[in-house]
Amino acid sequence: MQIRKKKRGQLIVLSGPSGVGKSTVIAELLSQRRDIYFSVSFTTRRPRTGEADGVNYNFVDRMEFERMITDGELLEHAEYVGNYYGTSLKIIQEKLEAGIDVLLDIEVRGAAEVHEKCPEAVLIFIIPPSFEELSRRLHRRNTDSEDVIAGRLRKAREEYRQIPGYDYLVVNDKVSEAALEIISILCAEDCRTKNRIHLVDGI
Amino acid sequence: MQIRKKKRGQLIVLSGPSGVGKSTVIAELLSQRRDIYFSVSFTTRRPRTGEADGVNYNFVDRMEFERMITDGELLEHAEYVGNYYGTSLKIIQEKLEAGIDVLLDIEVRGAAEVHEKCPEAVLIFIIPPSFEELSRRLHRRNTDSEDVIAGRLRKAREEYRQIPGYDYLVVNDKVSEAALEIISILCAEDCRTKNRIHLVDGI
Repeated sequence: MQIRKKKRGQLIVLSGPSGVGKSTVIAELLSQRRDIYFSVSFTTRRPRTGEADGVNYNFVDRMEFERMITDGELLEHAEYVGNYYGTSLKIIQEKLEAGIDVLLDIEVRGAAEVHEKCPEAVLIFIIPPSFEELSRRLHRRNTDSEDVIAGRLRKAREEYRQIPGYDYLVVNDKVSEAALEIISILCAEDCRTKNRIHLVDGI
Repeated sequence: MQIRKKKRGQLIVLSGPSGVGKSTVIAELLSQRRDIYFSVSFTTRRPRTGEADGVNYNFVDRMEFERMITDGELLEHAEYVGNYYGTSLKIIQEKLEAGIDVLLDIEVRGAAEVHEKCPEAVLIFIIPPSFEELSRRLHRRNTDSEDVIAGRLRKAREEYRQIPGYDYLVVNDKVSEAALEIISILCAEDCRTKNRIHLVDGI
């Protein structure tokens, strides 16, 4: 419908601690909102078994990544355990200008960088129902040693300190409910007066 | 569920021009969100045929209304075509403190007064898809003369000037969609970090 058409897409940033179930929530969200463009990050880390280029990440070498930094092609980037991770500015701008909502899955430092550069971005942080539950989920994955899990929980506590900088807080107790809350947030953001004032024809 | 429990109810203010179909949208909203308390206004105007005391309005006489003003019992009030209209502060406070969301259907001046006294209130303005459509809806109701309709449209244009003071703008094209948007807005407001920060246990 013409009258509902948005002028510009919405930039959505999703963060949350390792083990919270973010990928599952994102998959559920994207299955219900197929119009959202999920931004695939660039990284210099090697693909793990089962990971595909362009799906999980865009895998590039260090020289190419550093060229992207130099040429200002990245909206945000960070170095993490010796590898670069970053988000392409160009692709995102194209989508937003075409009126398409763009979803980024990035950690707290990258989110802060995006927020600084795009103050209109919507920042959502996903937490587990409790810290014990996060620990249970990390153990249940059965992929990490106790030391690694302890490290992830320590990191989660650090990340939690950045929560006040996020607009919304979603508790991932049930995946379907968490996805529904995010869908509601995106709908509400579309309804914000500043995003719809062009629909008012009587002034 | 304990973890989702809100500390305090949300105050929701709904405004919109005469003829936009606000009552129908509210009825649909309340049928889906039975936990919301719809605040019935007090008025000194006489009940119209079919109107019931305590349902459409709480009908009181002028002396009682003025006593309520003097005793500070009203959150907002206005005089309109010789009659008083107002919202009870006490009932609303009780509901909000009990964690119940409260919905007010009030016009733009009253909404501004509520916003001043309760800055945390969520203000939603409902518009028709177009001004011509508003005119068509007012004619279709078949209750008003051409003069009265012209007056309502003039008033709508005045009310539209206050839209930038509202948080959200909902277009009532289809009632079910407008109600769904309001439900999404209320869900999103519940998800705001400031309303949920008490759920974070790891900091």
